[in-house]
Amino acid sequence: MGRMTAAAFAPVDLTHASRLINHGPTVMVSSAHAGQRNIMAAAWSMPVEFSPPRLAIVIDKHTHTHQLLMASGQLAVIVPGRVLAPLVLAVGQRSGRDEDKFAAHGLQPLAGPVLGLPVLEQGVAAWLECRLIPEPHTQAAYDTCFVEVVSAAADPRVFAHGRWSFRDDNTDLHTLHYLGGGQFTAVGTAFDASTP
Amino acid sequence: MGRMTAAAFAPVDLTHASRLINHGPTVMVSSAHAGQRNIMAAAWSMPVEFSPPRLAIVIDKHTHTHQLLMASGQLAVIVPGRVLAPLVLAVGQRSGRDEDKFAAHGLQPLAGPVLGLPVLEQGVAAWLECRLIPEPHTQAAYDTCFVEVVSAAADPRVFAHGRWSFRDDNTDLHTLHYLGGGQFTAVGTAFDASTP
Repeated sequence: MGRMTAAAFAPVDLTHASRLINHGPTVMVSSAHAGQRNIMAAAWSMPVEFSPPRLAIVIDKHTHTHQLLMASGQLAVIVPGRVLAPLVLAVGQRSGRDEDKFAAHGLQPLAGPVLGLPVLEQGVAAWLECRLIPEPHTQAAYDTCFVEVVSAAADPRVFAHGRWSFRDDNTDLHTLHYLGGGQFTAVGTAFDASTP
Repeated sequence: MGRMTAAAFAPVDLTHASRLINHGPTVMVSSAHAGQRNIMAAAWSMPVEFSPPRLAIVIDKHTHTHQLLMASGQLAVIVPGRVLAPLVLAVGQRSGRDEDKFAAHGLQPLAGPVLGLPVLEQGVAAWLECRLIPEPHTQAAYDTCFVEVVSAAADPRVFAHGRWSFRDDNTDLHTLHYLGGGQFTAVGTAFDASTP
């Protein structure tokens, strides 16, 4: 598959932000606090509301990300393209307590515009900066964290005007979906319900 | 695309049940109580735990499904194959208060083995019978319902031995992922992270 170079990301209106994970992609979660930063993989996330744009995401309470999230009250959701499957698997296998995974993988994150969280754009379809809505019971009982999106952007070649556009000429940016056991799948081209 | 005939579903071990929605498919939710039954579409669901297998699913509190769920404490999650895109869109657009959607669409559900909930197998990849774990606050604040899977089964042509197998010869059963605005995508064939 051809490798696409990074394009300028375009802001996504907050009323469309939930659509960025509406179809269930596997995402990466970045966090930062007091000079530490981290990135992990998260297969389990979903929107819970369009307006305001709110998401639920499962963050194991034993992870370094959980610790940074509780301290900072913030996280970023990064929606990787298919081309980043090796990175997603790699950041899902090691703990950020043991190494700075950005440095270990040669990643040079940008700073999100509202919260300054580390986000990636190369090989990435979209990112969302989010503030935690503290819900101690669901965090403890189900590792489920509710967050509200405060800024979002996407690669306009694959998401523009509030819509995904998965085509044959942008397969590198088609979203990843983790099947377990080291196996992924990615979405194919979009279609109308009337022509499955 | 060729139309596959229904095959005998095989039970899925409960330790593998969360994998059925690990990759974020759009699902249908069926429910029943006191002689009423319903089926709706739900784009927003995710696992929250492998063992016991627990899911979170967003059910708008104004829906007929929510009413049946609160009365019965049960729901079934049905994972449709790509071929059912028109049905998924249709059951997502009308309320079960106005009609019996099973009858309206000529659907003849089977009864799930543990809870007796109406499940479908024709064109379907998998189903899961679930019991509600009452969480009044998250149900009210985020429409988010936590459930525990008590039985599951899948079409062995696409899910067997605890693993999805999305191949070129079973595309009808590749899972659907709703993009919004009447547009769907479906997953492609599976791949290892090392060969995106």
